[in-house]
Amino acid sequence: MLRVAYDGTLYHGWAFQEGQKTVAGTVIAAISELTGDEVELEGASRTDAGVHALMNIAVFDTASSIPPDKFGAALNTKLPEDIVIRSSEEVAPDFSIRKAQTEKTYVYSILNSDFADPLRRLYTYQVRYSLDVDRMHEAAQYLVGKHDFKSFCSVHTQALTTLREITGISAVREGELIKIRVSGYGFLYNMVRIISGTLIEVGRGRLEPEDISGILSECDRSAAGPTAPPQGLLLEKIRIIA
Amino acid sequence: MLRVAYDGTLYHGWAFQEGQKTVAGTVIAAISELTGDEVELEGASRTDAGVHALMNIAVFDTASSIPPDKFGAALNTKLPEDIVIRSSEEVAPDFSIRKAQTEKTYVYSILNSDFADPLRRLYTYQVRYSLDVDRMHEAAQYLVGKHDFKSFCSVHTQALTTLREITGISAVREGELIKIRVSGYGFLYNMVRIISGTLIEVGRGRLEPEDISGILSECDRSAAGPTAPPQGLLLEKIRIIA
Repeated sequence: MLRVAYDGTLYHGWAFQEGQKTVAGTVIAAISELTGDEVELEGASRTDAGVHALMNIAVFDTASSIPPDKFGAALNTKLPEDIVIRSSEEVAPDFSIRKAQTEKTYVYSILNSDFADPLRRLYTYQVRYSLDVDRMHEAAQYLVGKHDFKSFCSVHTQALTTLREITGISAVREGELIKIRVSGYGFLYNMVRIISGTLIEVGRGRLEPEDISGILSECDRSAAGPTAPPQGLLLEKIRIIA
Repeated sequence: MLRVAYDGTLYHGWAFQEGQKTVAGTVIAAISELTGDEVELEGASRTDAGVHALMNIAVFDTASSIPPDKFGAALNTKLPEDIVIRSSEEVAPDFSIRKAQTEKTYVYSILNSDFADPLRRLYTYQVRYSLDVDRMHEAAQYLVGKHDFKSFCSVHTQALTTLREITGISAVREGELIKIRVSGYGFLYNMVRIISGTLIEVGRGRLEPEDISGILSECDRSAAGPTAPPQGLLLEKIRIIA
């Protein structure tokens, strides 16, 4: 099992796709170079193109004799600078990170400024309208708990159910940066980006905080705000519960 | 006169070079596209390849009828996302930013961590040794004032004199980030990067803070520490004094 950090800027997302530069594909090629094994890599989160991770988790089978805790460092020598293995460890042969119970934390970063700072363009979404972060935080609290998040899910989803549980969410201003941090036991396709796009509508005054209840109960994607762009999104951490 | 911010990652530095992708060359091409003029661009600081700027200053002549204060916004439509004009204004026809008296502030950012964070690799220099920032700050104070900075200047300099004045310098820790901020009336080639490389030697205990006096008085590049790499360096601001 690998804990993986990456800058998603130059990748077509996590998931392996033949003929595309993907994070999983790049890690698979590095494992092959290191061990000679052709592995399948199971990822905890299939992040989209342009989305970043400080910690995604990947699991694979290998017959390599490299000690499990040294595998990550060895693999880093075969990886480009924008993908870094943070740690590696052995897990039970039948362990599946997709089936494990996990809590994930995502952070969405907004640059609330007139100035399109070129040094932050790859890791933030610039919003020129002045945003009221207290309203955004208040609105976000309506999302905490178990809800049907169908309104906050891309229509392209293949999920069997749109019921999910958010364990905590906050919107905090740090100077020109606004960070929306969301934790939960599972997320639908584009869910954090739609939540962020909707909270931005609240922050600029086009929705009221209490409108979030109604948006949830409509169970219709068109009730929520736009999908915020990918580069502002970071998978910050994953906690394995069981 | 333009105030220009840029991510230097993909550029061979500020200064125009035939056949190379440079910041000045890119701005010159954008001005040509906007106005039809073939201009010469005078920059306040000829930043090296990979060095960033939140504010460099560039001056050129144009017969364009675009109002001076709107020129920057118009030019941004012709520039890539990694170069942004922050403001534009008219200056006297004989104004030279190289000859003007200015105070420049540079920031050198160190990521003091075991983890080679892929999201910060383009804007920081990773140092794995634990650094004592109080020692670095103490050492830095020996550099304040007028000194012969020959020890802190690349041997490739074409400067007539190596006498310079630093008006202020600090080393501050913000979590895993250490920021060295230096202000002065002028800087020699690679001066901030050599100062940063030397302060890192102090921070990890290979030099004592009071050794800086001796390094200054030797007037020999080999007395100082290594040149820290370019991506940690940012030209933060330029104040025009006269």
